[in-house]
Amino acid sequence: LRTLTPPAPAQNGAHVLRAPFQLEPPQAKTLAMLRQHGDLSRTEIADATGYSRATITTVINHLIDIGIVEEIGDGISNGGRRPRVLSFRADFGYLVGIDMGATSLDLVLADFKGTILTHDAIEIDVRQGAVAILTVIRDCVLARLREANIAAERVYAFGIGVPGPVDFNAGMLIAPPIMPGWDGYPIRTFIRETFPNAVAIIDNDVNVMALGELRAGAGRTHKNFLFVKVGTGIGAGIICNGVIHRGADGSAGDIGHICADKNGPTCHCGNIGCLEAIAAGPPIAARALEAVRENRSSILAKYAQVTGGKLTAIDVGRAAAEGDPIANEIIHDSGRIIGEVLASLVNFFNPSLILIGGGVSGIGHQFLAAIRRGILHRSLPLATRHLRIDISPMGANAGTAGALALAMEHVFVV
Amino acid sequence: LRTLTPPAPAQNGAHVLRAPFQLEPPQAKTLAMLRQHGDLSRTEIADATGYSRATITTVINHLIDIGIVEEIGDGISNGGRRPRVLSFRADFGYLVGIDMGATSLDLVLADFKGTILTHDAIEIDVRQGAVAILTVIRDCVLARLREANIAAERVYAFGIGVPGPVDFNAGMLIAPPIMPGWDGYPIRTFIRETFPNAVAIIDNDVNVMALGELRAGAGRTHKNFLFVKVGTGIGAGIICNGVIHRGADGSAGDIGHICADKNGPTCHCGNIGCLEAIAAGPPIAARALEAVRENRSSILAKYAQVTGGKLTAIDVGRAAAEGDPIANEIIHDSGRIIGEVLASLVNFFNPSLILIGGGVSGIGHQFLAAIRRGILHRSLPLATRHLRIDISPMGANAGTAGALALAMEHVFVV
Repeated sequence: LRTLTPPAPAQNGAHVLRAPFQLEPPQAKTLAMLRQHGDLSRTEIADATGYSRATITTVINHLIDIGIVEEIGDGISNGGRRPRVLSFRADFGYLVGIDMGATSLDLVLADFKGTILTHDAIEIDVRQGAVAILTVIRDCVLARLREANIAAERVYAFGIGVPGPVDFNAGMLIAPPIMPGWDGYPIRTFIRETFPNAVAIIDNDVNVMALGELRAGAGRTHKNFLFVKVGTGIGAGIICNGVIHRGADGSAGDIGHICADKNGPTCHCGNIGCLEAIAAGPPIAARALEAVRENRSSILAKYAQVTGGKLTAIDVGRAAAEGDPIANEIIHDSGRIIGEVLASLVNFFNPSLILIGGGVSGIGHQFLAAIRRGILHRSLPLATRHLRIDISPMGANAGTAGALALAMEHVFVV
Repeated sequence: LRTLTPPAPAQNGAHVLRAPFQLEPPQAKTLAMLRQHGDLSRTEIADATGYSRATITTVINHLIDIGIVEEIGDGISNGGRRPRVLSFRADFGYLVGIDMGATSLDLVLADFKGTILTHDAIEIDVRQGAVAILTVIRDCVLARLREANIAAERVYAFGIGVPGPVDFNAGMLIAPPIMPGWDGYPIRTFIRETFPNAVAIIDNDVNVMALGELRAGAGRTHKNFLFVKVGTGIGAGIICNGVIHRGADGSAGDIGHICADKNGPTCHCGNIGCLEAIAAGPPIAARALEAVRENRSSILAKYAQVTGGKLTAIDVGRAAAEGDPIANEIIHDSGRIIGEVLASLVNFFNPSLILIGGGVSGIGHQFLAAIRRGILHRSLPLATRHLRIDISPMGANAGTAGALALAMEHVFVV
């Protein structure tokens, strides 16, 4: 790594967001092209970056010298000699992607081409606090590195999606409701103590899922789309002009507390009729339990009996699949209200794609159908002309794919 | 203009968006820096673009040779010799900015530094169609050029804000409700027939006003903000990460038909309770007239008498200023409902600034106060921590300033 600027020292200001490698613009642009478009020839890189063929040749030779890039055989000829194709070297370094939920986390280790080497699903209780959970993460990564005979110094980036509000630049959670003990904790400093060359990028879980769909999923062909997670709460990741839109304070996409019904129930936030107080997992389950108490559904009663008087949104989905009309009505109402709120956002933002994910998104096709109807009923025809609305096909993998993309995109350029 | 690519011929595909000059990346970046930041030294340009001092020197010498850029005296010294400051040459070329409304248009002619040379306010009836209005525009520009002894070939760009939906890339209006006869009309071709070197950039009027605030107004220090125009209809221009967000189909910001009240009146679009059917100028006037008919306001009755039984939102503002409680209530209700809808958009988009403009925005301070209350009541604290909500200080000038900016930004780079 002769001419690359060495990583900043860990002991001092390690919570500042800083890429492990500082590059000149032509180097950075070349690597960004390879990251975004995969393997390319020198001519393709020159065309795409706007730099001269001579500049790109110098850059590529240097990147090959220091081991980031390699030639991997011949591309397609345009008539003349077949051009050599350039690619990231898989073993230049390693990346960690983490999708953290309240009760579990998924951790993947990948090489520099993004190939996933290991995948761990670990049960946690996020309320145990930052040190406890980060220790679990650190030990898991160290174990996987040891098995593969990779030094901790070869890990260059962690991408971490967390279920709470994040100060993206500081790499910290800010007053997270379900993560006490994480508020303002310097995650970056903790990571650097064990992985001295690694930058840690922390972002909200929904933003990370949207990024996963953008880089590796249904979002690849879209520049403006929404990833809407429906689970215990409701949130949206916004891709605007091909990048995550975080807003002025990092709170963009916080749609769970949009007023969906002025005569609705009181939300835990204190306001009336918030979307997530009406349509997320808990109110779906609560309405089902109410139906059981009022003897309106024998199928839901059966599920409540099995679980000792508890119900989840998933149970409601199962009851609906068995033909229970009450369960169907609950799911339909939830989807319709989500669709009505999304209709406003479609008029405002004019996305070309809305992906529905999260634990509740799998409760049945009538959920998606009701969301679609709610959106199309209240949106302008011009705004929905090319709008696709789908359940996220990546599902649970969107989080880890997005976390890896977040890591990869911050190794060289911040 | 030796090495600049000449403008595309007008007779063939002139409706395609194409900059008059095609530049190499270092030239384009240098000019973009001068456009965004005003006068700069060579060192500042090198630092800001990331190109070497040697590259920038070559670029600047070339731009001086061909007459785009000039040296304008000394900048501030950093200890050594005082650096020469570079600037656009005012007389390199000329730009036209047009802010078109339904019944009037503002037309400004500016030099290459953006200095406005002439300003015409012309009464029109936009329903006369594209050819009639474009002929008025053409003749006005030709007259002003003749007075200043400038050839039509020296006009390099028209920026035009229009009150209707636009296909930005095609430079055409698409099924505009209040502009029949403009649908799909090739405005660019019309302009090129008289101004062979000019590109014409057409955009929605609210987008153009937002751009005006971004470049020359209250938006200069904000990267994510909304310009909300309240007039006959209600629309928003969205600045996202420092650029206009037009969305997948160019319809982003069309917030007038967001549902503000499920039990509200039927809108002309056929839906129930659209924001603009409740809170724009016409419903404000209609409620006031109703109060007159029901003998509930002597002050409003006085205004209605003067105008022969007609009232506008401006009259309601005047009555409120005289202390009329009914007028105050109408204005307050309108502001509150606009604020409630904006609260949802604040949660979603997390802007740092909302500017209220358009004809209705001047009807009194209680209008802004009610909008503010509506927003703050229903938004998340994190999203409003740094949120400013103001009446647009540029007012009617935002449109022409934005139209000039639109023109300037498309002369060199599309």
